[in-house]
Amino acid sequence: MQNFTFVNPTRILFGKDVIGKLAAEAAKAGKKALLVYGGGSIKKNGVYNALTAALAANGVAVTEHAGVKPNPVLSHTREGIKKALAEGCDLIVAAGGGSVIDEAKAIAAGTKYNGDVWDFFSGKPAPREALPLFTVLTLPATGSEMNSGCVITNEATRQKYSTQSPVLFPKVSALDPETTLTLPRPQIAYGAVDALAHIIEGYFTTKDRDVEITDEVVHALARAIVASTERILKDPADYNARASMMWSATLALNGLATCGYGGTNFINHAIEHALSAIYDIAHGAGLAIVMPAWFKHHLATEGPARLEKFGHAVFGTSSAEETIAAFEAFFRRAGAPVRLAEAAIPADAIPEIAANAMGLIRMWGMKHEQPEIEKILRNAV
Amino acid sequence: MQNFTFVNPTRILFGKDVIGKLAAEAAKAGKKALLVYGGGSIKKNGVYNALTAALAANGVAVTEHAGVKPNPVLSHTREGIKKALAEGCDLIVAAGGGSVIDEAKAIAAGTKYNGDVWDFFSGKPAPREALPLFTVLTLPATGSEMNSGCVITNEATRQKYSTQSPVLFPKVSALDPETTLTLPRPQIAYGAVDALAHIIEGYFTTKDRDVEITDEVVHALARAIVASTERILKDPADYNARASMMWSATLALNGLATCGYGGTNFINHAIEHALSAIYDIAHGAGLAIVMPAWFKHHLATEGPARLEKFGHAVFGTSSAEETIAAFEAFFRRAGAPVRLAEAAIPADAIPEIAANAMGLIRMWGMKHEQPEIEKILRNAV
Repeated sequence: MQNFTFVNPTRILFGKDVIGKLAAEAAKAGKKALLVYGGGSIKKNGVYNALTAALAANGVAVTEHAGVKPNPVLSHTREGIKKALAEGCDLIVAAGGGSVIDEAKAIAAGTKYNGDVWDFFSGKPAPREALPLFTVLTLPATGSEMNSGCVITNEATRQKYSTQSPVLFPKVSALDPETTLTLPRPQIAYGAVDALAHIIEGYFTTKDRDVEITDEVVHALARAIVASTERILKDPADYNARASMMWSATLALNGLATCGYGGTNFINHAIEHALSAIYDIAHGAGLAIVMPAWFKHHLATEGPARLEKFGHAVFGTSSAEETIAAFEAFFRRAGAPVRLAEAAIPADAIPEIAANAMGLIRMWGMKHEQPEIEKILRNAV
Repeated sequence: MQNFTFVNPTRILFGKDVIGKLAAEAAKAGKKALLVYGGGSIKKNGVYNALTAALAANGVAVTEHAGVKPNPVLSHTREGIKKALAEGCDLIVAAGGGSVIDEAKAIAAGTKYNGDVWDFFSGKPAPREALPLFTVLTLPATGSEMNSGCVITNEATRQKYSTQSPVLFPKVSALDPETTLTLPRPQIAYGAVDALAHIIEGYFTTKDRDVEITDEVVHALARAIVASTERILKDPADYNARASMMWSATLALNGLATCGYGGTNFINHAIEHALSAIYDIAHGAGLAIVMPAWFKHHLATEGPARLEKFGHAVFGTSSAEETIAAFEAFFRRAGAPVRLAEAAIPADAIPEIAANAMGLIRMWGMKHEQPEIEKILRNAV
């Protein structure tokens, strides 16, 4: 078990009708909020009305920054920063999924930075200061509501890059499972895939394989994610399954699932970022394609031990091959693509995708070369 | 799944050689520390030397408050408060197990309070202010290093009572598994029992039994605690097992293991507090006696469902009776007593113990009467 530091100061308000409490907490941080959201689903599911009413009732004035895209883009982030500066906003409130929260984090940091926000994503020092951020999560998937990272796509350069800083932890996040009851079915699938992807990266890339407590935590999260998703697919109105899924996805990337693993890496994410930077597909869809392909590569290069352990604990499988098949079967059942062709990505694009992924692989200091990435992607043909 | 709030701001420095980092963090909070510790085991295992040297190197002057007892007592707590006030201490550094950290918390709060510190434990409002607390944990068991509660025994009234407040979270806790390599064998057993006790209370007393993610987290922690302890009993020098045990015990009472359970209670703890208030036995020893007795009562009054689920996931058992037997066997194997007589407590003391427990049961707002507590205790004869 390797040394680690764990800290996570985000306050979670979980359950029904927690938006009012979030607004009361936000009001302690400031009186002029930039309200960041996406394509308007929060207007359909009642979150927009509840949140704006609660902010108003707590004396918080709101400037709206709508239209965040599923892979949030740099140009829209820059617009948000301009708005926040022009209106003198002293806090950010984000309502939506991980993309909305990620863009809100970038805006929070960019507003306090005397330079271009892309600096944070392109290898320059991480943010040292940010406006306080409050989030209302409506899509369990990315874990951004309780961590200090964010991902932005530079649409001009086709780079989907990330940054991380302790100042980016949301102060408070409201997680009401009822807001997820109306999620479209693809988002149920992609959320489940994304949450699983977060816990498998560390588990499978750790060089230290004697970290029993964290292995157990990873198995626990994976079992809860799979079981909750199966229940949701059967009965989308199942509140307890929605709740279990929502909290599981948050725990999957809040730091707990890698404690003691030491030098892990995010290889599946690096490859997927290239897929969605070029093809603008959903992050979860891209991961469902990349993960089985990478598992096959992992099995060929590192042997069956981890796949056997994980599969036995989570899927009840008894071999590495069965574990990979169980992942694929789960992704398919949920409705996610598991091959490039199923997302209309041609096999001859593999060199371009791999070349794009190399940018992130180098920036993250990972030891992989382009031929290896191409080989992994060919497992997804 | 019930509504909940989760927040835990404590920073954890985990692994080898983290005491120096802790001292550097402490120095940011102040320059005059009250150093709280127990009977001197930290002088044998090197923690005392490492910590005092690191504090000095960081410019932190130290006033010592040694001699904390295993069930920390009110009189010694009051002495600590007097010392901290007399020396103008602006922070507390605690080095030891849960008893040391608990007394340090009470001193931290008492120093900032214009009244008697026992007020916090006897039903008056919880602390609103406390000196910043930094801890070096040397005994995995109570979870106090990453939570906001503490327990003190009023030796005059034989009351072992608790308080809880957000101001009592340690700022930073250093967890170096190497400091646990020399633990006497009974403390290995009692630590394992205590950590298990923390996760079973919520799991078995929740009225909401559809909280899949938290059930999974509880199973994961229990499996890690049992497996790590078995390894430690076999090979006390097994660093990875010590590390897994240490982090598991912390997670067992940092808030994660009850998320969504709603109105749970700490019935085993209430009964055990009476045992150690009267007989001054180790908390873990008392719990190993109370838990099997309470499980039998739970089975008789609430049926086998939870015992079956837990046992199947943790011990591989297939009935509630087998689960209780597996707990007892594990406690015995570790070296803990599982009957009153094994701790030299006479059966005819049961009414007195039950009467003492009723004080805490009433203060904690639990719905149990003395005859029920006596009945539970008779299961431990």
